[in-house]
Amino acid sequence: MSEPLKNQKSILVVGAHAADFVWRAAGAVAVATSLGARATVVALSYGERGEAGDLWKEPNQTLENVRRIRREQAEQAAAAIGAEFRCLDLGDYPLEVDREALDRLTELIHEVAPDVILTHTEKDPFNPDHPVACEAVKKARLLAAGSGVVSAFKTLKPPALYCFEPHQPELCGFVPTTFVDITPVFEKKRKAMEAVASQTYLQRYYAELAERRGNHARRASGDSSIKHAEAYQRLLPMVVSEL
Amino acid sequence: MSEPLKNQKSILVVGAHAADFVWRAAGAVAVATSLGARATVVALSYGERGEAGDLWKEPNQTLENVRRIRREQAEQAAAAIGAEFRCLDLGDYPLEVDREALDRLTELIHEVAPDVILTHTEKDPFNPDHPVACEAVKKARLLAAGSGVVSAFKTLKPPALYCFEPHQPELCGFVPTTFVDITPVFEKKRKAMEAVASQTYLQRYYAELAERRGNHARRASGDSSIKHAEAYQRLLPMVVSEL
Amino acid sequence: MSEPLKNQKSILVVGAHAADFVWRAAGAVAVATSLGARATVVALSYGERGEAGDLWKEPNQTLENVRRIRREQAEQAAAAIGAEFRCLDLGDYPLEVDREALDRLTELIHEVAPDVILTHTEKDPFNPDHPVACEAVKKARLLAAGSGVVSAFKTLKPPALYCFEPHQPELCGFVPTTFVDITPVFEKKRKAMEAVASQTYLQRYYAELAERRGNHARRASGDSSIKHAEAYQRLLPMVVSEL
Amino acid sequence: MSEPLKNQKSILVVGAHAADFVWRAAGAVAVATSLGARATVVALSYGERGEAGDLWKEPNQTLENVRRIRREQAEQAAAAIGAEFRCLDLGDYPLEVDREALDRLTELIHEVAPDVILTHTEKDPFNPDHPVACEAVKKARLLAAGSGVVSAFKTLKPPALYCFEPHQPELCGFVPTTFVDITPVFEKKRKAMEAVASQTYLQRYYAELAERRGNHARRASGDSSIKHAEAYQRLLPMVVSEL
Amino acid sequence: MSEPLKNQKSILVVGAHAADFVWRAAGAVAVATSLGARATVVALSYGERGEAGDLWKEPNQTLENVRRIRREQAEQAAAAIGAEFRCLDLGDYPLEVDREALDRLTELIHEVAPDVILTHTEKDPFNPDHPVACEAVKKARLLAAGSGVVSAFKTLKPPALYCFEPHQPELCGFVPTTFVDITPVFEKKRKAMEAVASQTYLQRYYAELAERRGNHARRASGDSSIKHAEAYQRLLPMVVSEL
Amino acid sequence: MSEPLKNQKSILVVGAHAADFVWRAAGAVAVATSLGARATVVALSYGERGEAGDLWKEPNQTLENVRRIRREQAEQAAAAIGAEFRCLDLGDYPLEVDREALDRLTELIHEVAPDVILTHTEKDPFNPDHPVACEAVKKARLLAAGSGVVSAFKTLKPPALYCFEPHQPELCGFVPTTFVDITPVFEKKRKAMEAVASQTYLQRYYAELAERRGNHARRASGDSSIKHAEAYQRLLPMVVSEL
Repeated sequence: MSEPLKNQKSILVVGAHAADFVWRAAGAVAVATSLGARATVVALSYGERGEAGDLWKEPNQTLENVRRIRREQAEQAAAAIGAEFRCLDLGDYPLEVDREALDRLTELIHEVAPDVILTHTEKDPFNPDHPVACEAVKKARLLAAGSGVVSAFKTLKPPALYCFEPHQPELCGFVPTTFVDITPVFEKKRKAMEAVASQTYLQRYYAELAERRGNHARRASGDSSIKHAEAYQRLLPMVVSEL
Repeated sequence: MSEPLKNQKSILVVGAHAADFVWRAAGAVAVATSLGARATVVALSYGERGEAGDLWKEPNQTLENVRRIRREQAEQAAAAIGAEFRCLDLGDYPLEVDREALDRLTELIHEVAPDVILTHTEKDPFNPDHPVACEAVKKARLLAAGSGVVSAFKTLKPPALYCFEPHQPELCGFVPTTFVDITPVFEKKRKAMEAVASQTYLQRYYAELAERRGNHARRASGDSSIKHAEAYQRLLPMVVSEL
Repeated sequence: MSEPLKNQKSILVVGAHAADFVWRAAGAVAVATSLGARATVVALSYGERGEAGDLWKEPNQTLENVRRIRREQAEQAAAAIGAEFRCLDLGDYPLEVDREALDRLTELIHEVAPDVILTHTEKDPFNPDHPVACEAVKKARLLAAGSGVVSAFKTLKPPALYCFEPHQPELCGFVPTTFVDITPVFEKKRKAMEAVASQTYLQRYYAELAERRGNHARRASGDSSIKHAEAYQRLLPMVVSEL
Repeated sequence: MSEPLKNQKSILVVGAHAADFVWRAAGAVAVATSLGARATVVALSYGERGEAGDLWKEPNQTLENVRRIRREQAEQAAAAIGAEFRCLDLGDYPLEVDREALDRLTELIHEVAPDVILTHTEKDPFNPDHPVACEAVKKARLLAAGSGVVSAFKTLKPPALYCFEPHQPELCGFVPTTFVDITPVFEKKRKAMEAVASQTYLQRYYAELAERRGNHARRASGDSSIKHAEAYQRLLPMVVSEL
Repeated sequence: MSEPLKNQKSILVVGAHAADFVWRAAGAVAVATSLGARATVVALSYGERGEAGDLWKEPNQTLENVRRIRREQAEQAAAAIGAEFRCLDLGDYPLEVDREALDRLTELIHEVAPDVILTHTEKDPFNPDHPVACEAVKKARLLAAGSGVVSAFKTLKPPALYCFEPHQPELCGFVPTTFVDITPVFEKKRKAMEAVASQTYLQRYYAELAERRGNHARRASGDSSIKHAEAYQRLLPMVVSEL
Repeated sequence: MSEPLKNQKSILVVGAHAADFVWRAAGAVAVATSLGARATVVALSYGERGEAGDLWKEPNQTLENVRRIRREQAEQAAAAIGAEFRCLDLGDYPLEVDREALDRLTELIHEVAPDVILTHTEKDPFNPDHPVACEAVKKARLLAAGSGVVSAFKTLKPPALYCFEPHQPELCGFVPTTFVDITPVFEKKRKAMEAVASQTYLQRYYAELAERRGNHARRASGDSSIKHAEAYQRLLPMVVSEL
């Protein structure tokens, strides 16, 4: 990856599994990169157990092969939206983030110096790994932006923190606070989705979700030019110069 | 008041009593008008019973006189932050908003066509009128932006809706989602406060609150130039082009 | 309508406006009637102001005509799912339920003697009438099933009470507790939707919602035969003989 | 009733129906009066429709007779715990508190000048009148302790406000904050219960509840001498000299 | 234990300590087995520290002996309701579920293939082990029903998940969604209770709770034949064919 | 420290870092000791990384030196309010409480036998260590007051449990249930604050908070003699002899 430019905006997505960012946040990432930002996608695992059901149906499948395929797909999807992909490879189902992994994630946040972090919701009754990822991100963000030994030398402006939309929002306690208009970049999100899924089902599903959230965004804003949107929940207050 | 300019931003504050807007929202209003917006402050009552304890200590005080004094003070405070003041004069302690009053408020929202509405929290265990005002504003906002007979002829873009900070935030279920940096206009807010209060106590109290929220805003944004801020809770999602 | 049969199950939907039941509950109603139940749909208003934007675009439109058209459409939709349609005609935007209207609704519940009542959510930041309808239904249900003067002569088994799914579920505090498999009756719901909407947009929208909830129902139950479902939130505990 | 003594503690119970105070708060009242306090019980209605099922089974029963019987029972129960009984006679099922009734309740609070007010929970899915009573009490309490015209002449120390335990606590959002040890006065509560109920069933039921809450109070305090307790939820913070 | 029959329903209870299932879920289990289901009770520990206070009062008591006695009692109680008892013996006060224990629990769920799982609430301010057990069960259930490596070969229909009633329900955030009528099997629950408790106190306590919940179930259903019930909170939506 | 007196009240504060107790709970501790109680302050860490930013700005600073300075400051602050200071020295940013540390904390609670425990809130989006401390305290308190092996020999009355006020209360879910009047001991709190902070900023900040909470306490109690107060949230019900 090229060097970050001075004053270049930085956006970071942290997902539990390799492809989480594609379905849930590819639009907001593409909007950011199209406006000149630098985007980094971090997967805590390749999702080799919990997110790769199709691949395991192949005869003689191996763990190594599943990991390789998912890495290639995720890199291709990230490229489609102008982002860099990295994986901490911590294993999944269950994902566990021990002290060393937490330190790696903290260090990574220091390095990437994001203005915005996107991750899972705090609660998800359909997935054992998503809340673990959220908890780790919240902790690493505070450690990276914290004070003391480290911060006497490095400083990190506290990044904005958002949850992206889970599969069953109400059951995850997800209440949207922010819709991102992704109309101008929707084709890029479509390309990212094509990179990680052989079936067209999921692509159609998330295209419909984008339309539905586009409808909500139109109703909330009165802006009839919005066709597609993604929903986010901001976890901490924002600071503005004017309402 | 002069005519609204084309494309001029419009901000509306609705308070239960004449001076509510001063303590809780004068900063955000002053920021808006200093950037060219048109601001309207609506008081549902003069607060002649519940908010005028000092005036009633005068011998031979009359209701008419209390109303007149509070109107003059509120107009002066509104002028200090560049806003127009209006009062529906519905009476207070208890404030009641019947069908006719609701229609007047709806019509007023149509006329003012605000981009942003600021009002009380949904709950306030220390004040019988604040939740009544909030409920009326939420309903009138929906009626004004709604469809059918009315909207076949007029259209109103749905205004953003915020609660301003109550006196005891936690007990009112107030959770800030937005801090407004009011550093550049803080002197205007101070003038507005001086217009409605003879005692310096309240002015000092709200100056301290502005510093405290300024501290929170600095922590949340990392922007060390913020000295004073006001806290708001957004009740509906926002729509943005980028996170 | 024909007389209720002895021991025939009775299901009641109460909506704020004439067509609310179609989008949100037509599937569950059709399932019930296809299994032999008697279904009654009550609209508290014709939705002549807030739900009839298209009709008002016609030149020389009159209130009387709008009411008539909406009544005919609702009756046709109800017929498609085997239900009877009634309207209390209380007016909408804003809907108000005064003491007399509450008594009429209570009396109606006594007459219909429902086993199940379906209505709006307690909260809806996008609609001023839906929470009013919910509040009235909850109260009338308790009055109808209550004790004292009335109940010394008539008895009503307390009906189960469900909220149907609102347009923006998370912002209405809607958390599904129950999915109804509407696969076998989906064509009937489609016919009901065609009766109330000239545009195909809404029909497609709710067909997609039914598929999406079908997907959730499959995931929650493991039953792969479910294609379409509707989501409901039960407000009071159920009593079962076995888990 | 005799005149209140100087500095005598005053406790007020407000129930929707004549006998609500007996089951839910007779213990705390008896403790208060046994320690020298003055206790007043206010019923907003006689509960002649919703709380008098047994009486209506008598042939030729009349509304007047039901009211009379319930008044006598409530007075007898109040006497057993040393309290005065009053009834606003607003009717029940549904209970409605209009502006005039609110003013009467406010005036009554001014007169009684309670240190403590006990009333229903804010929510009760099994009773249409309990939340109406709670809402009215909260409002009247604020009006009585408020400022302006009235308070320039009279002053009322803001009374502590507690919800007493509803029949199905979890479904009413009731979370106990306070257990009152009613061991020393339990026989008085039993007498009060005998005054309002011919059946022994309810007396046994509430005796068991008192034991159960006694068990909880023992576990929370470690005080093994507690045999019976009542549970309360305090709605506003308390002020103490020491933790 | 005999082999599971084809299509035989399977119900699983997971408790933190050996006797938790007896007080909280023996009725629902007995109903299930009386209708032909296979029932398995899993204790994560013998409760040898936190749940065996009486045994430790014996002079010269040993850990080995306490474990043995509690195992025998639990097996006898399980037999009374037709269930098999197993213990993972992880220790208690505090209970800890590490990765290996989580894998054992996951494997056990795979083996038992339950239709229904019953466990503790997510929160319990009176017990350090109950929330740990709940968290582990939620995770193991998702892992057992999840996708990837494992599920390419085995499939498990996602089991329904319920919390059983804790000792102080409101303080544990327990809100009943479901009452089970245990009238026909109440004698079996009584026998199970007798097996684990020498004192009659607890047996009387839980008999009373069953009557109280029976009263609630009668009120919610109008079915006057219900004498005893148990309360449950369903954590995920159910899927039904009809409301 | 001198031996605890018989029947002497014992109060325990547990903070994540060395100085947490000073800002948040020094007033309540000073009130307790001035009334004859024994007070113990436990810091889980010295806060050498997250709470010592100023010290790390010194050239050639060492971890050992930072720890020593913070220990001395905390001891001096504790002395000013009559308390004993202890530190478990578990490290901070992130604080981790493993099994051994939990056992030490449990043992310490047994030894100190507190009537009251004060600690952090369950949630704090601005600090990674505060929720960890709260979780550990809740668990250790239950273990220390629990049954089984240990409690057959020692008994501990369950201590009351309070959260002290966090820096941004609404975002931490902090809702005050209790205000402590610290007017008589405010000078002692000021001395404690001077001991741990070279800058006057924080001292002024917390003096203002004490005035603000004093204002709330006056409003809640009507007691005009209160000048300074601290806010607390009680996590478990209290048991009283009278309301």
